Amino acid sequence: MRIIRTRQELHQSIKSLETGSIGFVPTMGYLHEGHLALIQKAKSENDFVVMSIFVNPLQFGPNEDLTAYPRDEKRDLKLAEEQGVDILFLPNVSEIYPVPLSTTIHVEKRVDVLDGEKRPGHFDGVATVLLKLFHLVMPNRAYFGQKDAQQLAIVEALVEDYFLPIAIQRVETVREADGLAKSSRNINLTVDERKEAPIIHQALLAGKKCILDGVEDETTILAEVQKTLGKVTKKVDYLALYEYPSFKAVTDFSRTLILAIAVQYEKARLIDNELIKRGEENA
Amino acid sequence: MRIIRTRQELHQSIKSLETGSIGFVPTMGYLHEGHLALIQKAKSENDFVVMSIFVNPLQFGPNEDLTAYPRDEKRDLKLAEEQGVDILFLPNVSEIYPVPLSTTIHVEKRVDVLDGEKRPGHFDGVATVLLKLFHLVMPNRAYFGQKDAQQLAIVEALVEDYFLPIAIQRVETVREADGLAKSSRNINLTVDERKEAPIIHQALLAGKKCILDGVEDETTILAEVQKTLGKVTKKVDYLALYEYPSFKAVTDFSRTLILAIAVQYEKARLIDNELIKRGEENA
Repeated sequence: MRIIRTRQELHQSIKSLETGSIGFVPTMGYLHEGHLALIQKAKSENDFVVMSIFVNPLQFGPNEDLTAYPRDEKRDLKLAEEQGVDILFLPNVSEIYPVPLSTTIHVEKRVDVLDGEKRPGHFDGVATVLLKLFHLVMPNRAYFGQKDAQQLAIVEALVEDYFLPIAIQRVETVREADGLAKSSRNINLTVDERKEAPIIHQALLAGKKCILDGVEDETTILAEVQKTLGKVTKKVDYLALYEYPSFKAVTDFSRTLILAIAVQYEKARLIDNELIKRGEENA
Repeated sequence: MRIIRTRQELHQSIKSLETGSIGFVPTMGYLHEGHLALIQKAKSENDFVVMSIFVNPLQFGPNEDLTAYPRDEKRDLKLAEEQGVDILFLPNVSEIYPVPLSTTIHVEKRVDVLDGEKRPGHFDGVATVLLKLFHLVMPNRAYFGQKDAQQLAIVEALVEDYFLPIAIQRVETVREADGLAKSSRNINLTVDERKEAPIIHQALLAGKKCILDGVEDETTILAEVQKTLGKVTKKVDYLALYEYPSFKAVTDFSRTLILAIAVQYEKARLIDNELIKRGEENA
């Protein structure tokens, strides 16, 4: 595995891979099984795997957890090496933002709900850093987890808007044995919060069952989810149902839907979702 | 010369050029010697030349000359062929804008003056279409005329912002014998306007001489330019001096400066500029 910290070195290394296809896994580090699943999918579909670890300040709001975002470079290096990553790109902030930007990318669609609504500018920052990284890595495919479903839909739209020659690949959410979605932020949960957190997934499954059973009333469905969430309710940042991938209000329950929850714990904000399509076990 | 109208065909054709370097000349057609100079520079520096002709609606304001913009595809095809263009890409609007955009690119720097100020949203449209075209063509180098100096500086910033692996090449403005900058819009001048228009370049040269002679007072310099412009004055959309390529107010007359003029004729808005650096004949 080559460990690379500058754009210049990355450019040279990427050029040397020209003979094969490149799968790209952009991450913010503090790797967990969710990331490893992205790497494995990338390995299975490409000749080479490039992973980036960059905690992108542009996608954090002023009151968000940029400084608290967990980091462990040594452990990440070991995991990436074990998983067979070919190139690991670990730039510092000035390498990705060497000059003040002259332009901004503004995401206009799909950002009036969920994290787009709760975290103004978040997806602008995501789109900006990804466009930069895509140009540096020039991958054939890029891998994103379904846990960040809104991000995934926005990245797909970004690629479509600008005709980027990159296939965006969706990878299923990886979960703990008790159903909690794997996340770098889980490390910031207290012991009690960690015990409670699997209820998020249980609530999503309750809502999913409701929809698969044929309920077509949004209020009823969300009440069912709320009931399961129980005592977590006061920390719920959002709980909502939309059509996917448009993130518009549901007008047709036979379409693919997304049920999404965000819970604000003391030092960690967790998100999770289920894609639901009637007649299909997994949407 | 291959004439291509769809992204799909273009993708196939570009792939077949993988063995050599690609020079890209994006245009809005109605080709003149200015464009031909871009093609010749591109030919001299690359194995293949791709030219696009696309009148981009996104860069025209609601009261601008989109419909009046001159077009002559047959003549353009002939000229491109004669000049040795390898691939001519002639998409229609729905090929470049197949779906409503989910994102917008907003140019923030260098747009508070000149055409950025006079044509709100113009450079956002330019940046958007160029990012699309760059991804479709994936050139090694792209060619832009100095006549559109503000566009050139913004494209350079766009490429820098997103690490596009493309060298932006500047090509000198091509002029008629009487000094008028070649422009597709010149065809829309009346006979009298055409007779008068060379005064724009003469005025720029008067200002340039002033600066090269050591005058460091902006008011004096611009008054000299105004004097030469004479009777055109009432149609002048802007006349201004900035540092280049920052397009900021002049604080140091030893830096590279840009003196720029826009004149609004009845059916054609003409722009021209001179880059000026003391101690150098051509900046």
